[in-house]
Amino acid sequence: MKLQGPKGTRDFYPDDQARRRYIHDAWRRVSVRHGFDEVDGPIYETLDLYKVKSGDGIVSELFSFRRANGTTDYAIRPEFTPTLARMVAARANALPRPIKWFALPNMCRAERHQRGRLREFDQWNVDLLGLDTPLADAEVIAVACDLLAELGVTPAMVQCRISHREVVRQILAALGVADDKMQDAFTLLDAKGKMTPEQFTDKAVALGLGKEQVARFDAMCGKTYAVGDVDALRDAAGIDDDLADLRALDATLAGFGLADWCAYDLGIVRGLAYYTGTVFELHVTVSDERALGGGGRYDKLIELFGGPAMSGVGFGMGDVVLANLLEDQGLLPEHLAPTPDAFVLAASDLGATHLPGLVATLRRAGLHTRMSYKQTRNLGKLLKDAEKARARFAVLLDDTAAEGQAQVKDLATGEQSPCAITDLAQQLRL
Amino acid sequence: MKLQGPKGTRDFYPDDQARRRYIHDAWRRVSVRHGFDEVDGPIYETLDLYKVKSGDGIVSELFSFRRANGTTDYAIRPEFTPTLARMVAARANALPRPIKWFALPNMCRAERHQRGRLREFDQWNVDLLGLDTPLADAEVIAVACDLLAELGVTPAMVQCRISHREVVRQILAALGVADDKMQDAFTLLDAKGKMTPEQFTDKAVALGLGKEQVARFDAMCGKTYAVGDVDALRDAAGIDDDLADLRALDATLAGFGLADWCAYDLGIVRGLAYYTGTVFELHVTVSDERALGGGGRYDKLIELFGGPAMSGVGFGMGDVVLANLLEDQGLLPEHLAPTPDAFVLAASDLGATHLPGLVATLRRAGLHTRMSYKQTRNLGKLLKDAEKARARFAVLLDDTAAEGQAQVKDLATGEQSPCAITDLAQQLRL
Repeated sequence: MKLQGPKGTRDFYPDDQARRRYIHDAWRRVSVRHGFDEVDGPIYETLDLYKVKSGDGIVSELFSFRRANGTTDYAIRPEFTPTLARMVAARANALPRPIKWFALPNMCRAERHQRGRLREFDQWNVDLLGLDTPLADAEVIAVACDLLAELGVTPAMVQCRISHREVVRQILAALGVADDKMQDAFTLLDAKGKMTPEQFTDKAVALGLGKEQVARFDAMCGKTYAVGDVDALRDAAGIDDDLADLRALDATLAGFGLADWCAYDLGIVRGLAYYTGTVFELHVTVSDERALGGGGRYDKLIELFGGPAMSGVGFGMGDVVLANLLEDQGLLPEHLAPTPDAFVLAASDLGATHLPGLVATLRRAGLHTRMSYKQTRNLGKLLKDAEKARARFAVLLDDTAAEGQAQVKDLATGEQSPCAITDLAQQLRL
Repeated sequence: MKLQGPKGTRDFYPDDQARRRYIHDAWRRVSVRHGFDEVDGPIYETLDLYKVKSGDGIVSELFSFRRANGTTDYAIRPEFTPTLARMVAARANALPRPIKWFALPNMCRAERHQRGRLREFDQWNVDLLGLDTPLADAEVIAVACDLLAELGVTPAMVQCRISHREVVRQILAALGVADDKMQDAFTLLDAKGKMTPEQFTDKAVALGLGKEQVARFDAMCGKTYAVGDVDALRDAAGIDDDLADLRALDATLAGFGLADWCAYDLGIVRGLAYYTGTVFELHVTVSDERALGGGGRYDKLIELFGGPAMSGVGFGMGDVVLANLLEDQGLLPEHLAPTPDAFVLAASDLGATHLPGLVATLRRAGLHTRMSYKQTRNLGKLLKDAEKARARFAVLLDDTAAEGQAQVKDLATGEQSPCAITDLAQQLRL
């Protein structure tokens, strides 16, 4: 009998988990220093919750289930946003605003697994609600860029591509798309990468655009505009609006020092229909990876989930593409597991009787302490184990343990000196 | 429309999540300093995996599902041990021994929720495999007790009650239980708390015990024996065996300084049939809570999951009963959320223009930095926000920001002094 884990899921052996923890710790540390509070919700929700935002179409992507005698369908969470919206809606009046939340949920999607896409993954979620200014959009973009910088990623590797639903809407309207075709136009733009230019043109013409307009729009979307260049974007777009919202975002992004990380790209759509303003994606520019993550403003979401009118902006970043990027760019430190402060070994039978007590004392003092489980008293072999464990110090217990002495060997320098057992915790902590 | 989370699951708002994190951090910190490596596995496994150890009986306690066109049944994990056994079995020859693993998985059981029992919960798992001596049992008990001490729990609140399958088997055999009735006898003992003394006696008699023997066994199980008292236990048990295994465990527990935490209690059975030696439970003695956790030695487990013969010992501790205990005993610190290093506020319009840049600089320097989102320049109101956020320092930006100055107010002492903006990160980190 050989049992295997489900396809598209991962077993995290110590090295795998240390790498996963490296990413989680960075997500949490950066979120906290940007003033976001951690939240979480259940691993499964009612199936209905996932239909609110995404309709019935999402059901086939979910792992759903119903209890033997039950009447309610549930699903393992495929995303965190519906849970967040439910939680905000339930306490909308009691929560101090702005609401700045982050979460690190594991989640499941019933997709074919392939590079960058698994059936279970972790996703960093950051959301800022109840603040109706571009400062909120900029803060959310800032925490994403700061996370990348924290992990050694540079703007040469990843760019945050920003668009704005309202600006694109105005452009499309100016080009001749009627209001009632607008949603279809966004859907088409989002699918552009998956069709030939001819297919795209045919479908665009069906929405009321002339071929010339399609070409103009295409050219516009093929260009990016730097932070500080909103005038150039407006000129290219050929619209009258002064783009006050985008200008305010632009100024704050510059103020946050994010000009190197960000660029405007009107080709960014983000498929989800619920975005209402700024949308952005984190694009890997040095390889063929999928987007690292993305998000945008969703000012109708909380109402959709039964809460009051409340503005919001947020994004998600999965762990799979991020780990691929870090690995490809050589940004994962070789040794990520916690290293022991002390490795205690018995160099004599008499010393061995003092081993459990010393190990317990060091651990209770907060020191990461490992010990040899071998019966041998061969010092060379025992020290090799201490080195293999990457311990800072080896602590040798020999017959002098009876007089309260241990030998401490610094495994980096090789220096060895005696130390009173009662002083050891204090000494090793320095 | 009012959407709710599934019954028996939890929404973790910031205060809830901070409390959850407090427990998780302690679990992880104590595990690491005892030399355990973190692992994890998928949130769902094949349903078959859960039948290996527990038979078909477990299926009704699981949230199981099958994909629309699929042929495999899966279930959300109700425990971690089958995943661990599968992972160890798959790489048994490659993994360095002893294997010392811990995990902090969330898991689900389709039980009626009640105090101390939820449908989704977190469970600390600690396992030590490939070391066939009582030192392994003692180390696993030690990490459990050290976790409790780390959280302020004392031996007056929780006791680790230890028994040994082989000792109990010998007692039962001496009392007249035949080998082929032994498993039934263990099952009966485990269910003892759920029946009247008369029911228990009737069933025990059916297994071949006389009423007098039942009374003797009962009296034996009603007593506990301290660490160091194995002789007294042996006398009461009336068996010939010298209990070498239990004596070695006893000596190591004493060596680890755990005499206050531990006692032997032959009434501890642990229902799971796969335990082979030491078994133990963490009993709350100051209130009516369920057991905090428990575990034992399972020397046949890895074989059962298709691996080689390998000894093992481990335990699990859930977060729900633990959090109840900490709360009841007043052991949860009042403020668990991370507190800001700096709260930046604009005391003038000119100052406000410098705010995003300063906030970004402080965050990039690793400081937990929050800011005021209010448009007001009323210093009293803004400082009140800084205090409410429990920040260490308020940083005031007024017109002097144009000359590179900020005012820093220590919110604990009320002291205020000017500081060059370029030195702020350095100053606040001290």
